[in-house]
Amino acid sequence: MNNKEAKKQEILEAFQFRHATKQFDPEKKISDEDFEFILETGQLSPSSVGYEPWKFVVVQNEELRGKLREVSWGAQGQLPTASHFLVILARTIKDTKYDSAYVENLMLNVKKVPEDIFGQMKVRYKSFQENDLKLLESERSMLDWAGKQTYLALANMMTAAAQIGIDSCPIEGFQFEKVQEVLEEADLLEDGHLAVSAMVAFGYRSQEPRPKTRKPMSDIVQWVK
Amino acid sequence: MNNKEAKKQEILEAFQFRHATKQFDPEKKISDEDFEFILETGQLSPSSVGYEPWKFVVVQNEELRGKLREVSWGAQGQLPTASHFLVILARTIKDTKYDSAYVENLMLNVKKVPEDIFGQMKVRYKSFQENDLKLLESERSMLDWAGKQTYLALANMMTAAAQIGIDSCPIEGFQFEKVQEVLEEADLLEDGHLAVSAMVAFGYRSQEPRPKTRKPMSDIVQWVK
Repeated sequence: MNNKEAKKQEILEAFQFRHATKQFDPEKKISDEDFEFILETGQLSPSSVGYEPWKFVVVQNEELRGKLREVSWGAQGQLPTASHFLVILARTIKDTKYDSAYVENLMLNVKKVPEDIFGQMKVRYKSFQENDLKLLESERSMLDWAGKQTYLALANMMTAAAQIGIDSCPIEGFQFEKVQEVLEEADLLEDGHLAVSAMVAFGYRSQEPRPKTRKPMSDIVQWVK
Repeated sequence: MNNKEAKKQEILEAFQFRHATKQFDPEKKISDEDFEFILETGQLSPSSVGYEPWKFVVVQNEELRGKLREVSWGAQGQLPTASHFLVILARTIKDTKYDSAYVENLMLNVKKVPEDIFGQMKVRYKSFQENDLKLLESERSMLDWAGKQTYLALANMMTAAAQIGIDSCPIEGFQFEKVQEVLEEADLLEDGHLAVSAMVAFGYRSQEPRPKTRKPMSDIVQWVK
């Protein structure tokens, strides 16, 4: 078996290893270096038009974990046992609208786009948001759009973790409004510029999962030749 | 350097390798085995409550690629040059509502959930969709929810590709309604049960990309200790 075949097999094994871990071994902690690595795969994830509309809040504080647990039915076993618990925030319309101060700063100062090129991009992104995908239909559709980008980072972080033997659990089982209140109270939402998108717990499993089930390839792939 | 450190470095190199490839070398084709591997990482991706609300259409037909190109400003260079071009479809409310025939079949026949357990799950998912995330607010919010899950598969497929030296480009730059018309005409939407979520082109780069830029970690990560 050559190097590429071995790599493919190793990657697929990580996909089989990964499962939604409901309960972690509370004694086993992820090293700082490994967790930094996981975050880095989030940072390096792609996002639509390069907006990077995300923020990763690492909730290690027990009191905050407790408050989140009261309003997150899907994180009952994970919040008390996870080595690291991430709340993934998405940027709201205040930051993701084509003409926001956030976008301008990102493009000019982080991505070093020349000002005249940025002017042209803005025209394109206006039409993209208004017409092509009708993202500006509502604040919610803008937030869901940013949320989709955060799911790219979410997937990459979970898969990268699995590739080095770290378990994870993605979590959508929470009361959106209540979680917002908890995060707002903890001053984590940058004055309405951020909102909760998903949660993800990381750690080491305490028990073996059930076998993975998936629809067959023939149900989910269609070729048009 | 031990095995884990080498693996982490190799994964981060793949993240650096990956970029939104605008133009591919039209002469270089991905092998069937490698593309099957990429699709498999999509298949094995997680999704909220296990709904797998996706379908991957591999558009190799030149005529269909041409029609998509007319309504996809963001795929101008990719559609004519990509080795493989995927249209990622998301399942609509017809399939993703907690009491749909799709969900019932998936849970009972694919996941082999016992009927009484499925009954309890349905109550939970009803409340999840109606109250917790208010997904049932509109058909659009349900579609955006399914769309988010497809972005998990999208990220995994692009990263897995990069890990074996294959380039990709995720694409949102298209006119949603027009693409729907093209896909409907090609009879790919299962009678309104599917809608376009994103596109992604795969192949081999024809030129080297500009250096990657990202916001610093300190801007996107916040610890609550």
